[in-house]
Amino acid sequence: MGDVSRIACAALRARIMPADQAAGRIADGDNVGMSGFTGAGYPKAVPQALAARMRAAASRGDSLKIGVWTGASTGPELDGALAAAGGMAMRVPYQADPASRRAINTGETRYVDAHLSKVAGLARDGCFGHLNWALIEVTRILEDGRFVPSTSVGNNQTWFDLADKVILEVNSWQSDKLEGIHDIQTLHGFGGAPLPLTAPCDRFGSPYLTCPAEKIAAVVETHAADRNSPFTPPDETSRCIAGHILDFLEREVRAGRMPEHLHPLQTGVGNVANAVLAGFADSRFANLTAYTEVIQDSMLDLLREGRMRCASATSFSVSPPVAAELDSILDGIRDRVVLRPQEISNHPGVIRRLGCVAINTMLEADIYGNVNSTCVMGSRMQNGIGGSGDFTRNAYLSFFVSPSIAKNGAVSCIVPMAPHVDHPDHDVHVLVTECGLADLRGLSPAERAGTIIENCAHPRFRDALRDYFKRAKARSHARHCPHLLAEALSWHERYIREGSMR
Amino acid sequence: MGDVSRIACAALRARIMPADQAAGRIADGDNVGMSGFTGAGYPKAVPQALAARMRAAASRGDSLKIGVWTGASTGPELDGALAAAGGMAMRVPYQADPASRRAINTGETRYVDAHLSKVAGLARDGCFGHLNWALIEVTRILEDGRFVPSTSVGNNQTWFDLADKVILEVNSWQSDKLEGIHDIQTLHGFGGAPLPLTAPCDRFGSPYLTCPAEKIAAVVETHAADRNSPFTPPDETSRCIAGHILDFLEREVRAGRMPEHLHPLQTGVGNVANAVLAGFADSRFANLTAYTEVIQDSMLDLLREGRMRCASATSFSVSPPVAAELDSILDGIRDRVVLRPQEISNHPGVIRRLGCVAINTMLEADIYGNVNSTCVMGSRMQNGIGGSGDFTRNAYLSFFVSPSIAKNGAVSCIVPMAPHVDHPDHDVHVLVTECGLADLRGLSPAERAGTIIENCAHPRFRDALRDYFKRAKARSHARHCPHLLAEALSWHERYIREGSMR
Repeated sequence: MGDVSRIACAALRARIMPADQAAGRIADGDNVGMSGFTGAGYPKAVPQALAARMRAAASRGDSLKIGVWTGASTGPELDGALAAAGGMAMRVPYQADPASRRAINTGETRYVDAHLSKVAGLARDGCFGHLNWALIEVTRILEDGRFVPSTSVGNNQTWFDLADKVILEVNSWQSDKLEGIHDIQTLHGFGGAPLPLTAPCDRFGSPYLTCPAEKIAAVVETHAADRNSPFTPPDETSRCIAGHILDFLEREVRAGRMPEHLHPLQTGVGNVANAVLAGFADSRFANLTAYTEVIQDSMLDLLREGRMRCASATSFSVSPPVAAELDSILDGIRDRVVLRPQEISNHPGVIRRLGCVAINTMLEADIYGNVNSTCVMGSRMQNGIGGSGDFTRNAYLSFFVSPSIAKNGAVSCIVPMAPHVDHPDHDVHVLVTECGLADLRGLSPAERAGTIIENCAHPRFRDALRDYFKRAKARSHARHCPHLLAEALSWHERYIREGSMR
Repeated sequence: MGDVSRIACAALRARIMPADQAAGRIADGDNVGMSGFTGAGYPKAVPQALAARMRAAASRGDSLKIGVWTGASTGPELDGALAAAGGMAMRVPYQADPASRRAINTGETRYVDAHLSKVAGLARDGCFGHLNWALIEVTRILEDGRFVPSTSVGNNQTWFDLADKVILEVNSWQSDKLEGIHDIQTLHGFGGAPLPLTAPCDRFGSPYLTCPAEKIAAVVETHAADRNSPFTPPDETSRCIAGHILDFLEREVRAGRMPEHLHPLQTGVGNVANAVLAGFADSRFANLTAYTEVIQDSMLDLLREGRMRCASATSFSVSPPVAAELDSILDGIRDRVVLRPQEISNHPGVIRRLGCVAINTMLEADIYGNVNSTCVMGSRMQNGIGGSGDFTRNAYLSFFVSPSIAKNGAVSCIVPMAPHVDHPDHDVHVLVTECGLADLRGLSPAERAGTIIENCAHPRFRDALRDYFKRAKARSHARHCPHLLAEALSWHERYIREGSMR
């Protein structure tokens, strides 16, 4: 179990109890605001105890289902356990777990996909209902009752503010050296002075989370690792994508459009994004900065080797081997990283002002550059929009990246029409696959189609795309953005019917 | 002609010439950055002279085609004349003229639809090519060579900064009382201090436009009205839409989510938006403010009667009778209005910080709340996205409004799937038609479909939408966002084929 020296506040030490007893306080129909952002800093013991209770209730014919609000995705002990137990009635705003994905796509879980910067505000307005509980992992409780946050900040302070009652998990596995790297400040109301943030790592809040002691119903000790999946090593496809982006950025610098150290980088979550950042390690770029959601392995590498000067995010989402070393890694970089609440890490005003370079992954793009990030074949939720909308719309420069094919070549990531659009063409400056890069800035739809098909589509789908575009130009009822509606979605229909777009 | 007393600078007075002579300087292939935003403050004489030259060139078998960059839409003397003469090779970023729309949809004009807040930055980066000319209407030239802007600001200062050479139209028809209401400041680079704007009408720039005298190749005197179409008086449909919005806002105030004076309003362009604002005149709301693109007739009424405290925009887009009175209207409100460059009137950071309430019109929404603002039946460009993306993504609260049917009932504005998406469901908080209002905040896709169909769809299309949604839930390959791809676009196909969605 835990390490009682991590709980210096006597009043809260008196509320230590086993996870099962704490989980027993949560009732059917409750909404629970949990910590956790991209597999980091989520509660680990109480959700599993709660899942056991859900299974027991179901076996008695009783219902024990809750609404789960988080920062973003969590881990198998949370999303996985609760969804597998059939206890997740509602989920907001992002998930990436196979079991919760299944529950969403069978219709068992109501899923509210939302821009991550807007979740706290919507919750304050009661748009997701009433918040009964906050269930938050922290690293340590100070003597005066303040908390050292864990490996992510997310919406934790907002959940403390809104919830009727609070359960804390104090995780002694988390590095004590996290203390001091957080900058906590929530946004209330509108108008007033702008956020005093003129560089990515400026600070204007407190390193600690706070909550009135009388709200705290239970303190649970844990000693458990964040269970992020390891990143796959960059493969040839990812290396090609990274290479195209780096070449493009070098050309932008030579053209005088960006300084040598670029603008603050934002990169999405996952293997491809991690591989793209890894590409910077062998590049000519130095003195980089990041204003982003998530610090992954390769960004930590850039920070350690000094190629990245500083990084602001809301989460450390690192692989198990890196997590195990975090203690020593933090020694070298702790004055150059800040973890903030997600309404600030993803704040549109800061993103526009700093001129971020946003690099996000996609499921597919259509020939005009409209991007689908969320709904496979138009209906099946993959993960969620996450912060991609916060960054993309407001960034100085916005990349979307994907391998050109998926499912062993059965699926093209460039399609005639996307059956779901999260990012309209206006927001998509540059599309990149391993085949090449399409710079869409300043182009009309017909020009975009030409460059996307020739540069980004996989050769085996290129002829079919050229053929669609040519026939659409000839026969569409208008030529601004030519389409043949009767066959625009036929590739996706074919995939659903036959398992292949070809 | 003009009024030479409006040109106090001797050096520039020496460059006065007829419009035709000035137009003669513009060559085939040139890009021309023009003033003009929603039918206000656009150049009127030189474009018509240029159109005459284009027709003459064509009759000789010569080519005289240009790229036209503006703030937003202009008037028949500009977009209409150049498009009708077949001389518009490229157009950016917004238009609303029947002739230019035709040229775009036949493929004769390359049209680059863009978020209005981003145009100046993209132009500075050369994304639309090189800017040969600025052609800008001003109200007056001061003795020291600075200019009093006209009825819109748009990208004028940026065009002055970027163009090789400049042609000015000094329009003595424009009210001299415009002097002092503008606040000119352009954004260069990134990082640094936030915009010092904490209330809608804060000022931090200069009332005047500037341009090095050596760039100015010609000064043309004009005396010509902005030719905005008159607004249609609010009809029953618009009054119902306004009523639903006002009732909703009253409930939000009662629920404590907004103050009595609301947050700064943004309203889109056109009759429905004008009618919605007119509804405020008979409401309980007072001390209103606006942070918006365009001040239309009904907003001027609210300002005059004191129900609106102050308004920031980039254009006065008023009907001819109101334009004729602008002189006396300005007397009463000139210290309570500010016209800014569009990269500031539409700045995402300010919009998020002030918590704007955005009310924009749409062509159609699908049953899940994805909105099409631009491409009729997926291909035919109507006007453009304008500022709706700048405001909607970043606003505190975002409405999209439309009559529930169009084309005498042949078209439903609520459809199974939108064949083009400008605003993904994440950005659409409230949908409104004359039938009713759907509050989509915090809802899953299936819940959104229920409330949109029952509240917003026209009764004659409701059964068919219910039927699609019911069958999609039963047969879709996934239930998060159920669709039947083989028939999702069949309503639009039927309209193209038969002239009706029914």
